[in-house]
Amino acid sequence: MTKRQIVTLPEIQAVLPSLDLISAIEAGFAAYSAGQAVVPPVGELLLDKGEVHIKYGYLRDGAHYVVKIASGFYDNARLDLPTTNGLMLLFSQQTGQLVTILLDEGFLTDTRTAVAGSIAAKYLAPQNVHRIGIVGTGIQARLQLQYLQEITTCRDVLVWGRGQAQLSQFQRDMEPMEFAITPAQDAAAVLQTCNLIVTTTPAASPLLHVANLQPGTHITAVGSDTPHKQELDSAILGRADLVVADSIVQSLERGEIHHAIKDRQIQADNLLELGHIIAGRSVGRSSEEQISVVDLTGVAVQDIQIANAVTEALA
Amino acid sequence: MTKRQIVTLPEIQAVLPSLDLISAIEAGFAAYSAGQAVVPPVGELLLDKGEVHIKYGYLRDGAHYVVKIASGFYDNARLDLPTTNGLMLLFSQQTGQLVTILLDEGFLTDTRTAVAGSIAAKYLAPQNVHRIGIVGTGIQARLQLQYLQEITTCRDVLVWGRGQAQLSQFQRDMEPMEFAITPAQDAAAVLQTCNLIVTTTPAASPLLHVANLQPGTHITAVGSDTPHKQELDSAILGRADLVVADSIVQSLERGEIHHAIKDRQIQADNLLELGHIIAGRSVGRSSEEQISVVDLTGVAVQDIQIANAVTEALA
Repeated sequence: MTKRQIVTLPEIQAVLPSLDLISAIEAGFAAYSAGQAVVPPVGELLLDKGEVHIKYGYLRDGAHYVVKIASGFYDNARLDLPTTNGLMLLFSQQTGQLVTILLDEGFLTDTRTAVAGSIAAKYLAPQNVHRIGIVGTGIQARLQLQYLQEITTCRDVLVWGRGQAQLSQFQRDMEPMEFAITPAQDAAAVLQTCNLIVTTTPAASPLLHVANLQPGTHITAVGSDTPHKQELDSAILGRADLVVADSIVQSLERGEIHHAIKDRQIQADNLLELGHIIAGRSVGRSSEEQISVVDLTGVAVQDIQIANAVTEALA
Repeated sequence: MTKRQIVTLPEIQAVLPSLDLISAIEAGFAAYSAGQAVVPPVGELLLDKGEVHIKYGYLRDGAHYVVKIASGFYDNARLDLPTTNGLMLLFSQQTGQLVTILLDEGFLTDTRTAVAGSIAAKYLAPQNVHRIGIVGTGIQARLQLQYLQEITTCRDVLVWGRGQAQLSQFQRDMEPMEFAITPAQDAAAVLQTCNLIVTTTPAASPLLHVANLQPGTHITAVGSDTPHKQELDSAILGRADLVVADSIVQSLERGEIHHAIKDRQIQADNLLELGHIIAGRSVGRSSEEQISVVDLTGVAVQDIQIANAVTEALA
């Protein structure tokens, strides 16, 4: 290992636009659902000021294994520091030798999460998206919208968030990407008027309620990745025709699905897995009127695939 | 994070001799046993060619949390590569920011393990050590002997290993450190003639048998850190007056103690923990005639303490 094998965030950001991340991460999800990925349970470290997740694993036919360390320290905003952070490490499957350290500061985690959102929408959203709804105004809200450009031509966006200043900033930042951004008066308006919705907040109680749910809606729930976080009323999952997890086994313990099962709104037996839909082994949306929910809790295959893609591009 | 915060093995090796690692790691064990350390279960990744362990945690009154990634790829010897490898990462407990990457290539793991061996001997070995017995001839056998210099004046060493060439090499390498090294004809001779014994092999079935066990013997078992590895006949632990773990909870699932409990030679209730003995909260050896076994499976507090010591010295 030499210091040259260490890649900093600006180097990573320079190479990302040239990569076909949607294909790479689709292949990762398909391999995961087909049992071709080794992904042990997530390591978790809780501290007074934050939380750390360690995700690690490998694809059986790959060259590397990947360890990703990601943190959330929510008081950092007061210190003018980013609240999320992290890095990824690639090692050789043949020798265990360290190949690359990607000092991405959490950006690759944000990116692979956004790419997963666009994959969820690509396979599950209705064909005719008339309005995109975004819940949240942070980095993940922005990246989700950015990557949705690749799978839908809709540019009409309703965004809801708690702070007026953040909503205005979101609008100013995203309009140059040719989106028409409208701030929502309340979260209900998102369900009432949008048919491709992405939720990106760390909410601990539901923001979207079943009373406002319309036929033909697709929701990708990105924010909840722990047992306590929840953005969707469990009854929304109960009403949905399709409830899809990135990882069924993980969704039984974390995220929206875990809440909806506990609330007896859905049964584990009826869950679908995103990688099976990508591979054509499970049937996804079959009509424009269906309601679909994809619950993304984050799987190490996403980290493996994005880390490999960046490393190969820089080789 | 800048590339300057990344420390390579030569830089680490240059600073190690100036550090009081025994005190640092003693304090770590004491804090661990007192419940002052947060050390989640070890993450494990198994591959065709090797295994990877991820150990992580922090001391509640410390500044950093540490993630250590260590691997063993046993075919590497054929490729003329080291079989063990690894690195340690320090992050701020306040902000989650990466503070230091120690590219120690597994050397700090080897070192903190050897330091733990010397701490085990310091607290449990008889006062009058007449001969040191070493089982194994690899890097860990060498480092154990090196760190034993700090806690005993005995320089008479019997070493046993499977290969004659390795035994001779061990002898040539260690004699300049003023040890008188005698290669043993068989493993039995180690138990028959030594009263401070350290076992350092990855054996999967016992090398030392109770028939040869003498009163007044102390054994530190270092090699077994997984559920299947075993260097000591379980009956040795059954016969011992003191059976001590670095981590009781971990030793119920890994290492010699785990085998001896399964074989009904000892009971979990009678186990002692090294950190309690260090802190004076459990009584250790109380006579020269007692038999003691310390089973070291490796705890993240050792990694936390050595990583902190190196980082502080380089600051």
